[in-house]
Amino acid sequence: MQYLRGKFVVLDGPEGCGKSTQIKRLAERLRLLDIPVTAVRDPGTTEIGEQIRSILLNPAHVNMAMRCEMLLYMAARAQMMKQIILPALQQQQCVLCDRFVSSTLAYQLGGDGLTADEIRRTADIAIAGRWPDLTIILDITPEQGFKRIGRGRDRLEQRPLDYHRQVHANYLAQASSDPQRYAIVNADQHADAVHRDIMRMLERLEG
Amino acid sequence: MQYLRGKFVVLDGPEGCGKSTQIKRLAERLRLLDIPVTAVRDPGTTEIGEQIRSILLNPAHVNMAMRCEMLLYMAARAQMMKQIILPALQQQQCVLCDRFVSSTLAYQLGGDGLTADEIRRTADIAIAGRWPDLTIILDITPEQGFKRIGRGRDRLEQRPLDYHRQVHANYLAQASSDPQRYAIVNADQHADAVHRDIMRMLERLEG
Repeated sequence: MQYLRGKFVVLDGPEGCGKSTQIKRLAERLRLLDIPVTAVRDPGTTEIGEQIRSILLNPAHVNMAMRCEMLLYMAARAQMMKQIILPALQQQQCVLCDRFVSSTLAYQLGGDGLTADEIRRTADIAIAGRWPDLTIILDITPEQGFKRIGRGRDRLEQRPLDYHRQVHANYLAQASSDPQRYAIVNADQHADAVHRDIMRMLERLEG
Repeated sequence: MQYLRGKFVVLDGPEGCGKSTQIKRLAERLRLLDIPVTAVRDPGTTEIGEQIRSILLNPAHVNMAMRCEMLLYMAARAQMMKQIILPALQQQQCVLCDRFVSSTLAYQLGGDGLTADEIRRTADIAIAGRWPDLTIILDITPEQGFKRIGRGRDRLEQRPLDYHRQVHANYLAQASSDPQRYAIVNADQHADAVHRDIMRMLERLEG
């Protein structure tokens, strides 16, 4: 799997899909294969990103405009891109990222009239054109996802179930519209099986 | 000057150009003429904007990526736009704004390869296409400006003089390239004279 050096891989999906667990397992597996790994979490990871994240997740900010929310995610991303992801890729590390632009295309789409095209154009400027080589969507319904994690923890998770159903649909729609850059993995199975499916999807990056 | 109802006017320019003083005077003048005024400061004014502002001006954030900086300004702007400016314009108020997209086109241009086109495209999404009716640039050199305010107060003001010379040039360049939407006022004169010149420029918005 040495072809994963210098590759940028995103794991994304609805709440409770198991992204963090799977990134941890994947990072361990790649390190055993002597592939250097940098694992990051979007938004956050950098000090500036963590401060942006705290504005985003503050439950007091109920009146945050969707365009503001979208731009804050992009700002955190721009910082992480320049400070961590690009240098790691240049050192031929494999970068594993927990959420990325795909999350914005799922969670902020349609709010205040935001279109997918507007989100993609903003992202392209934020990340200076360096898109992930592969975005793996861990597919789980909101009902199953919330069963796993419990409910109502931060500002985004407090939104109604219909909103999370739309988010889930947005993930599947973006993945189907760009099969070259996306893969879908069924997350409603044992963590070992999810891990196995993720490893299989990564083979696409060979050559 | 009743034609100023429902108009969106920006006052902008380098440090020490006297924007805040002039906005205060202008607001008082318009209120005497029974024109309802909303005066705002970019970034900031909203609670979310003030939190974004504190990340931007924190002197500890020396390694902030220019694309992150640009997106944070746009996020604060998006919030202020939806929460304050658009409702005020709909109520036929005159909105006076201390700094706006014109500041980003002066201060962030060129950093990390950011182009004017990228900044304008991001702004267009942040403000959902509602550009100011007139942007008045208060023209002052950095040498004169810093003499007025004293030096080294926040993260942006700590940048070297060459940077501020470029900022000054960027203001003049954007104003000359779009004379319909911009006006330049000489700020190196008595505040009364600056105020008089601003009032004269506003006549352009008639009809």
